[in-house]
Amino acid sequence: MTVTSPQGFRAAGVAAGLKTSGNPDVALVVNDGPDDVAAAVFTTNRFPAAPVLWSRQVLAAHRLKAVVLNSGGANACTGPEGFADTHTTAEHVAAELGIGAGEVAVASTGLIGVRLPMDKLLPGVTAAVAKLSADGGTAAAQAIMTTDSVPKTTVQRGEGWTVGGIAKGAGMLAPSLATMLVVLTTDAVVPPALLQTALAQATSVSVERVDSDGCLSTNDTVIAMANGASGVTPTVEEVTAALTAAMTDLAMQLLADAEGSTKDIAITVRGAASVADALTAGRACARNNLLKTALFGNDPNWGRVLAAIGTTDAAFEADQVDVTINGVTVCRNGAIGDPREGVDLSGRAIAIDVDLRAGTEEATIWTNDLSIAYVHENSAYST
Amino acid sequence: MTVTSPQGFRAAGVAAGLKTSGNPDVALVVNDGPDDVAAAVFTTNRFPAAPVLWSRQVLAAHRLKAVVLNSGGANACTGPEGFADTHTTAEHVAAELGIGAGEVAVASTGLIGVRLPMDKLLPGVTAAVAKLSADGGTAAAQAIMTTDSVPKTTVQRGEGWTVGGIAKGAGMLAPSLATMLVVLTTDAVVPPALLQTALAQATSVSVERVDSDGCLSTNDTVIAMANGASGVTPTVEEVTAALTAAMTDLAMQLLADAEGSTKDIAITVRGAASVADALTAGRACARNNLLKTALFGNDPNWGRVLAAIGTTDAAFEADQVDVTINGVTVCRNGAIGDPREGVDLSGRAIAIDVDLRAGTEEATIWTNDLSIAYVHENSAYST
Repeated sequence: MTVTSPQGFRAAGVAAGLKTSGNPDVALVVNDGPDDVAAAVFTTNRFPAAPVLWSRQVLAAHRLKAVVLNSGGANACTGPEGFADTHTTAEHVAAELGIGAGEVAVASTGLIGVRLPMDKLLPGVTAAVAKLSADGGTAAAQAIMTTDSVPKTTVQRGEGWTVGGIAKGAGMLAPSLATMLVVLTTDAVVPPALLQTALAQATSVSVERVDSDGCLSTNDTVIAMANGASGVTPTVEEVTAALTAAMTDLAMQLLADAEGSTKDIAITVRGAASVADALTAGRACARNNLLKTALFGNDPNWGRVLAAIGTTDAAFEADQVDVTINGVTVCRNGAIGDPREGVDLSGRAIAIDVDLRAGTEEATIWTNDLSIAYVHENSAYST
Repeated sequence: MTVTSPQGFRAAGVAAGLKTSGNPDVALVVNDGPDDVAAAVFTTNRFPAAPVLWSRQVLAAHRLKAVVLNSGGANACTGPEGFADTHTTAEHVAAELGIGAGEVAVASTGLIGVRLPMDKLLPGVTAAVAKLSADGGTAAAQAIMTTDSVPKTTVQRGEGWTVGGIAKGAGMLAPSLATMLVVLTTDAVVPPALLQTALAQATSVSVERVDSDGCLSTNDTVIAMANGASGVTPTVEEVTAALTAAMTDLAMQLLADAEGSTKDIAITVRGAASVADALTAGRACARNNLLKTALFGNDPNWGRVLAAIGTTDAAFEADQVDVTINGVTVCRNGAIGDPREGVDLSGRAIAIDVDLRAGTEEATIWTNDLSIAYVHENSAYST
């Protein structure tokens, strides 16, 4: 039920010693063809990690035969030396597989500003090549975990073709992706331009609407590969729908496993003049620490919803906005609504519904609460 | 050393029962003239509280004889009824003092979305009027505290004239002011336009550069009153300098008392193409939860500084940025610099110096860390 669910893909995950824990930390996904079509979406952070710089170049041609991924180090902000490490890694994978380095993408995750121990990584790559198998997707998913508590995988079935995927990410979830590595595979026949368009659409309505803590990573990478092994050529709509389903499934798994979170919060802004307005208002709530701490404390503090939206330029009138939390309209016309005591926040799922009454568009942003465990995990992460 | 340090001002603070703790919660500051010049700066939040709506109208004429302030309730998002409560409060003050309601500003702080108990507030106002005195400034400072642990006051001496001030605020500190109420007084002779310009300048380089938790309040209010009682007419530069000194003093007190904070963090961005760029980059750091939690954990995680700046549109090249934390240049040219082990973060003060090497401008943003106590205080605030 992973990247090896579609035909013609092999994968592996091994422990190379990058993590002091001894847990698996090198993953490899190989496309055995016949096609080698690929597409990708990367972080928009202006300090892209070395593997992002490398993989962007590789993916420019929309052709890919392998992706090597490591946890235990982001290889970000490591200068020309770090880029050389990524290049060496790709060359090593290529040599082991008998392909070109320009057909190998690299993705890394872990601490920023630390060089990778190449004396461990390269033997790990060799070991991963030796372990490649048609059911290695789960091992690959495990090897890319950092603070994730569970591996994230997905599979979506078409008529005679399949989309599979693995993901990691449990913090820094934010717009323009998360510290998130995703590899999607499909055995459908998909032209490069179509795959890129479908992937961009799929990410825009899934991971790009997850804003767990507003922090944008230097390493976010989503790569999709299509090898045509099924011989089936689905329509544009079918490909887009399958990739969107896969990315949404993975995004919700990331949300559910966000560092220290105790709530999954869906903020739906409706009655907006535009989707952009709805997203802006939703994101302002998702990034408001006072709202997020209140929800951690099971406090339906609708005043903090308004205070957050009040910082945006979305179209609305202050005396027209309604806020409903888990079914109770606690704010009407920008003022006191039904009793807040009626709101049950004891479960993990929270639905905040904001009606701007300024139009007909809507959008949902997903976020988490801000918990004591989040602070603890992130203050202790690198020490 | 407060609003009653300048000549011709009286103040008082009393417990009216708005707070369940029984602590003081109503403050009054009265200008006995001869001039009644005033200026103000208010929150830019698009859900301004009822007292903000009221006081904006009152201050439009730049004349003011009294300010009544309450803690224990923000009177925000309370609709037309809340505005009527504010109006009634101003009328009551005016009647007690024998002045017009249009000469009375109102400021409130506390929970959003709850009506004020007028049956307690109005008798409190009466009691405050009875207690007005030329040394009542400290009592007034105490009566506006919410989660503040100490009252905030300031005094700045000119040649024959004085500026005094009180402030509250210990959370939601953010650009365009904080949940912050400030009253400044001076016995200098200052024309209305000059007072407004000087106050705007003073706030722009002080409280507007404090960004404790990125949350913008519905109630922020800074009011300055000048009564000319000293007979001294300082220059524009002298007035601006004194107000700036007073506001900076108060801003640093707010920072030091921010909810749950264990660090005061000064983020100076230099080598910027513009002051706006420096502020944008500094603010991105101040709002990055991963950086703030790292600093709480005494972790000089410069990678998170770059990741934060990398989300902005400030002018810089990724391989040109240096980061110095408490004197150690841990990042050079966007890559690994001196050993992070050399950084001592054990004290409360942290200086992060970012050199964008893209120009000659600089600016400092002040913020706090994100601590377990912050989450605890803000999740428990209204429950």
